[in-house]
Amino acid sequence: MSFSLKILGCSSATPTPNRYSTAQVLNVLERFFLIDCGEGAQIRMRQYKINPLRINHIFISHLHGDHYLGLPGLISSMGLQGRTNDLHIYANHQLETLINCFLDTFDHPIGFNIIFHHLEYSGLNLLYEDDKLTIYSFPLRHRIPTCGFLFKEKNRLRHLNGEMAKALEIPISKLQSIKEGADYTSPDGRFFENKFLTKDPEPPHSYAFVSDTVKLNKIVPWIDGVDLLYHEATYANDNAERAKTMHHSTARQAAEIAASANVKRLLIGHYSNRYKDLTILQNEARQVFAETYLTNDGDEFEVK
Amino acid sequence: MSFSLKILGCSSATPTPNRYSTAQVLNVLERFFLIDCGEGAQIRMRQYKINPLRINHIFISHLHGDHYLGLPGLISSMGLQGRTNDLHIYANHQLETLINCFLDTFDHPIGFNIIFHHLEYSGLNLLYEDDKLTIYSFPLRHRIPTCGFLFKEKNRLRHLNGEMAKALEIPISKLQSIKEGADYTSPDGRFFENKFLTKDPEPPHSYAFVSDTVKLNKIVPWIDGVDLLYHEATYANDNAERAKTMHHSTARQAAEIAASANVKRLLIGHYSNRYKDLTILQNEARQVFAETYLTNDGDEFEVK
Repeated sequence: MSFSLKILGCSSATPTPNRYSTAQVLNVLERFFLIDCGEGAQIRMRQYKINPLRINHIFISHLHGDHYLGLPGLISSMGLQGRTNDLHIYANHQLETLINCFLDTFDHPIGFNIIFHHLEYSGLNLLYEDDKLTIYSFPLRHRIPTCGFLFKEKNRLRHLNGEMAKALEIPISKLQSIKEGADYTSPDGRFFENKFLTKDPEPPHSYAFVSDTVKLNKIVPWIDGVDLLYHEATYANDNAERAKTMHHSTARQAAEIAASANVKRLLIGHYSNRYKDLTILQNEARQVFAETYLTNDGDEFEVK
Repeated sequence: MSFSLKILGCSSATPTPNRYSTAQVLNVLERFFLIDCGEGAQIRMRQYKINPLRINHIFISHLHGDHYLGLPGLISSMGLQGRTNDLHIYANHQLETLINCFLDTFDHPIGFNIIFHHLEYSGLNLLYEDDKLTIYSFPLRHRIPTCGFLFKEKNRLRHLNGEMAKALEIPISKLQSIKEGADYTSPDGRFFENKFLTKDPEPPHSYAFVSDTVKLNKIVPWIDGVDLLYHEATYANDNAERAKTMHHSTARQAAEIAASANVKRLLIGHYSNRYKDLTILQNEARQVFAETYLTNDGDEFEVK
């Protein structure tokens, strides 16, 4: 059951020859979600063999160019690829105006609807829900309104003991409720506790994306215990003052948040171009939280 | 005396893993001009070690996304790099509105002025002139208003015969007029024809950029005899009908224009993604015009 994160870009404000601006694709059970969309995201998708048409939901943390300037080109290409499915974009309300400025210059209408969902900036807000997954936004503190995103898999169905079900000739009509945890009484009155019929499923997984922000302790309860946390780490501690001024975080601060939230693994990115050797950021974070990993364009991480 | 063209992107509507959307940098005697600016142009500049701050004039042929969507990111990065010089953009008037949509979302003003020059769509129009160079636009025929651009070096000064000047003790005050072609009379009344004092300079060079268009014979006089012509060749002859419908050209048609205009060399690009092997386009064009060359991202061509 796939739950994995592909890094399309991990640079801060300006791209480098090898690091594009922020963009990630999260694959949750073959549903593909785009998180931020810096310039060149569609190029990375092609390089990494991700079909843009599989993406139906795009989450934009904030309207700094390095987090959304890949959208117009992606939308245009989706149109040229013959997309017809609705495209849902979750972002600050201003993005709708901006995208419409573009669409006005297109010489033929795109063949699909873009449905904008305007982010709110107080507490945990449910953005999306299906039978397997819920997605929430939560406010961060940056120079402009900014959100993080939380992807939480729902509890999985219990694993049915197939041999037992066959031996007891349990009718198919009963199987779903048993997978959901119900006990079973056979037609001849025998009672079976659910634990004899099923095994515990794999626990549900979760991923949290913490975009540009100062270190913000109030997000800890929202991301508590996630399997994988991405937290920006634009600077090392040597630039803590600058981080504060620019409303960004240091690698140490990202690690402190990961530790406070008891997450399993921490990914850092959005590196300032001043760091040619990124291990300084990784080492600084690992002093606080050992399970810290650098992101690079093209990296893939399993969420588990 | 450098006059060279660097290809930043040569794909048509959608980028491929190796070919970005249309963008080129023309270096005329260390003046750098950006011609079209598809998504990722600033990334290519970094990969090819071209400093964006050296670019003061940008020419956008038309407002299809694959020819201008790299601009917002480039402008944003120029601001972050601390640019203060004016930036001149020559484009359809609608681009000004579009760029202003972006600038409105920036949380701090960029530290330089953007001066928009609105393109006209009749005949050869002078866009730029300095002591070494003139740049003109000329109308093409595509689905939306589109221009090509002509870069013409001015006549160079004649090469002074240094030894002769020294022997005749020609005053420095006279040298400029002699380089410009004047004869010389010495204080003691001796007359020297200019041809005894100077040698012919290298002839001035020229480059023409023909963006998205149907085959358009009326451009031939405007680009007549240029050293280097870039002409879009989205399709091969097998798709001549589609080329017509989409208001694009075939490789053969690009070559026919090159031949009619007696240019020295032809570059083709803006390839449809359907052509995995581009030699079909090159071969088709070379049947009509032998001096045809494919463009690829990163290629550099001397204009001479």
